[in-house]
Amino acid sequence: MAKEKKFVEAITSMDEDFAQWYTDVVKKAELVSYSSVKGCMIIRPNGYALWENIQAELDKRFKETGVENVYMPMFIPEGLLQKEKDHVEGFAPEVAWVTHGGMEQLQERMCVRPTSETLFCDFYKDIVQSYRDLPKLYNQWCSVVRWEKETRPFLRSREFLWQEGHTIHATVEEAEERTIQMLNLYADFCEDFLAMPVVRGKKTDKEKFAGAESTYTIEALMHDGKALQSGTSHNFGNGFAKAFGIQYTDKDNKLQYGYQTSWGMTTRLIGAVIMVHGDSDGLVLPPRLAPTQVMIIPIRQQQEGVLEKVNELAKELSDYRVKVDDSDKSPGWKFSEQEVKGIPLRVEIGPKDIEANQAVIVRRDTREKITVSLDEINEKIGETLEKMQKEMLERARAHRDSHTTEAYTYEEFKDAVANKPGFIKGMWCGDRACEDKIKEETTATSRCMPFGAKAIGDKCVCCGKPADKLVYWGKAY
Amino acid sequence: MAKEKKFVEAITSMDEDFAQWYTDVVKKAELVSYSSVKGCMIIRPNGYALWENIQAELDKRFKETGVENVYMPMFIPEGLLQKEKDHVEGFAPEVAWVTHGGMEQLQERMCVRPTSETLFCDFYKDIVQSYRDLPKLYNQWCSVVRWEKETRPFLRSREFLWQEGHTIHATVEEAEERTIQMLNLYADFCEDFLAMPVVRGKKTDKEKFAGAESTYTIEALMHDGKALQSGTSHNFGNGFAKAFGIQYTDKDNKLQYGYQTSWGMTTRLIGAVIMVHGDSDGLVLPPRLAPTQVMIIPIRQQQEGVLEKVNELAKELSDYRVKVDDSDKSPGWKFSEQEVKGIPLRVEIGPKDIEANQAVIVRRDTREKITVSLDEINEKIGETLEKMQKEMLERARAHRDSHTTEAYTYEEFKDAVANKPGFIKGMWCGDRACEDKIKEETTATSRCMPFGAKAIGDKCVCCGKPADKLVYWGKAY
Repeated sequence: MAKEKKFVEAITSMDEDFAQWYTDVVKKAELVSYSSVKGCMIIRPNGYALWENIQAELDKRFKETGVENVYMPMFIPEGLLQKEKDHVEGFAPEVAWVTHGGMEQLQERMCVRPTSETLFCDFYKDIVQSYRDLPKLYNQWCSVVRWEKETRPFLRSREFLWQEGHTIHATVEEAEERTIQMLNLYADFCEDFLAMPVVRGKKTDKEKFAGAESTYTIEALMHDGKALQSGTSHNFGNGFAKAFGIQYTDKDNKLQYGYQTSWGMTTRLIGAVIMVHGDSDGLVLPPRLAPTQVMIIPIRQQQEGVLEKVNELAKELSDYRVKVDDSDKSPGWKFSEQEVKGIPLRVEIGPKDIEANQAVIVRRDTREKITVSLDEINEKIGETLEKMQKEMLERARAHRDSHTTEAYTYEEFKDAVANKPGFIKGMWCGDRACEDKIKEETTATSRCMPFGAKAIGDKCVCCGKPADKLVYWGKAY
Repeated sequence: MAKEKKFVEAITSMDEDFAQWYTDVVKKAELVSYSSVKGCMIIRPNGYALWENIQAELDKRFKETGVENVYMPMFIPEGLLQKEKDHVEGFAPEVAWVTHGGMEQLQERMCVRPTSETLFCDFYKDIVQSYRDLPKLYNQWCSVVRWEKETRPFLRSREFLWQEGHTIHATVEEAEERTIQMLNLYADFCEDFLAMPVVRGKKTDKEKFAGAESTYTIEALMHDGKALQSGTSHNFGNGFAKAFGIQYTDKDNKLQYGYQTSWGMTTRLIGAVIMVHGDSDGLVLPPRLAPTQVMIIPIRQQQEGVLEKVNELAKELSDYRVKVDDSDKSPGWKFSEQEVKGIPLRVEIGPKDIEANQAVIVRRDTREKITVSLDEINEKIGETLEKMQKEMLERARAHRDSHTTEAYTYEEFKDAVANKPGFIKGMWCGDRACEDKIKEETTATSRCMPFGAKAIGDKCVCCGKPADKLVYWGKAY
């Protein structure tokens, strides 16, 4: 078993060094490789398969709400980027600039899209003329580039994959409704599909998107107690429409500006899944997300009849995403591989099991071993996958709740940041100065003002003045 | 009917000006919009839905052969691009260069990928160590950039969407087998799914891919008699492996270079579908590709019971991709829209039909009207879609065959280029000089040397010297 031991031991302990644990898992599970392009990652088949499943599920949910997919150019001419003042200030410092095409210098340089509001505005200006043309509910799946200084696979890289939805509506109410609808869609997706509980809420003005009137966010808590912004949805009002001149004729034949939204989720979600569910042996994938849900590992596979039975079993389990590991490695090695890759269930079956008409199901998350008759294994696998999906969400929620602290005074707040990893609930007066002070002195930032939150007092946790806003604070990725 | 007339009349006649017809169809069917980014296109929902269907079907076929998807960075550092001599010569003149990231000038400029051989090589160098690591069968779906001077939607644009497969193998035989396998997969896909017949063959050395040992291609014939290269598959031998130092230890513990392939198909296929199947009223989509296969158009929809019946019918036809057009436009307007968008079947149903328990199916390609009992409509729609798919392929094949001319002398060849739009079959001695001369004097290029082609003589159609290679020549997009 020496080899297997080594395989697993190469993962640093979470408690010792969470960042190194993360890097080890990403590498051992073969999700990502580093490339010659500084700050950009290669997403390997195990990693990309996660993105494909996320994409398929999200795309289906988007389309159920009437969203259509499009594809916009990856370049934005500098003049176009500059049309909305706040937006360009937010993004210009971190874009990559194309200055030459072929052998010639461009007359106007272009950036590689960091996000595509400006391109969609330019497009909507052309295609939106009448109230009959509204709403437009467009989305695109693509990669974007932001020239980050420090990068980490999935969490922050110079190029990443995402979807960006961009809609335009006749009224501000309709735009607001869509903004909230998409945020809730994101939250439901995270909870149902990724087994990842999130806090839904509004960003403070300081933290909102460059050019937005309001930004909504879902915030998840990682195993180390840091927050991860996992999806955002923005209401632009008619600010972009005014900057770009997007006007339509309403029913009374009057010219009106359109109201816009945008919303996005990224490959960052894969980082979130790793940090919410992973453990000391590697990745743990929620069954609905897992590209392979069940790995069947034969014991004494060279013995007559074993592989035959195993292949028969795989066929019988074809309702699930099943693979057989019949490579010439030892079973122990195969167990380690299945574990580090986070495959939800493994089925162990050898000559003795076959004789007893049974197999052993092992859950990746709890290590629970379930001996089951082959007559009932199909049903049992289904049940166990569902149970695991549900319990992973519950466990993550319990972790989140037990890592959420209420702070009533600044002393309590500072103590919580220093000693109690997790979210800190604290009242806020609404003054930017308090938000800045908290960030500077504690490194915690305001994550969001949750929907329907109950006040836990009436004084700002920072300045002590009257406060009616409950904020979730925390250190963040 | 004045409005409807106008809608259709806006499409230029094919025979009058094929290029303008193409542009009109692309615009009227709302496939593409022009953007502020010169040479780049916006793919609108009707266009992108075609790409999504192409992608889903191809991706399924790739995966059935063991291919896995990955994602590589979109940037290539200049030094990496330069590692393989032929490759850099082929691509450097037409790439877009990124020179600045954020506020800083890059130490080494990077191009936006025109294709990713160099990145895959750099990756394979890291992950291929032993024969046990082979083969790797990777693919990615992404966009690429080539700084073209003249652009046309789908056919040639500065940015386009594609898939690029990149594989590495232990032996040259295995690499060759994969190269041919993927070419055949492409050809079968075009014929089965796009109803588009193709000629499968090998490119001459002059026309092969920069850095390849051999390039295979599928060539389709457009309605105007021009050829369109619709997919290519390249065998690199171990040239790239040597340039990049990709070595593995074989079973005898000896160091060997890997053998590589690459293969790609692009959004160009959408242009091909337009130009193979389109007609004077717009797009004609083969049923398997069509995002909407059946459009139900109610007649006198305001009359009681009509919309109810129509919605009932739509539910009954849910085996197919069905939509109902219950907008407040006139039926004639709706017919025109369904026609220009190429939706394969429309079902007309009004009060009289309902009374007679029937509906009228109209085929988009032949305009055939089929009156059918509502008791049998489900089955009939299925049959008609299949028949249409099959007949569209047959019609395109007949067009291709009737636009293929044999030329035995240079006079005949020149006459064919001038007067007989289509493929020209002609023998070739293998001398680059003849190929160059033909291109210069006639603008026709060698499209491919078809697999298993029978010689049609033994003299070069250009120089008259002994020749054993049959080449398909033609003007090309």
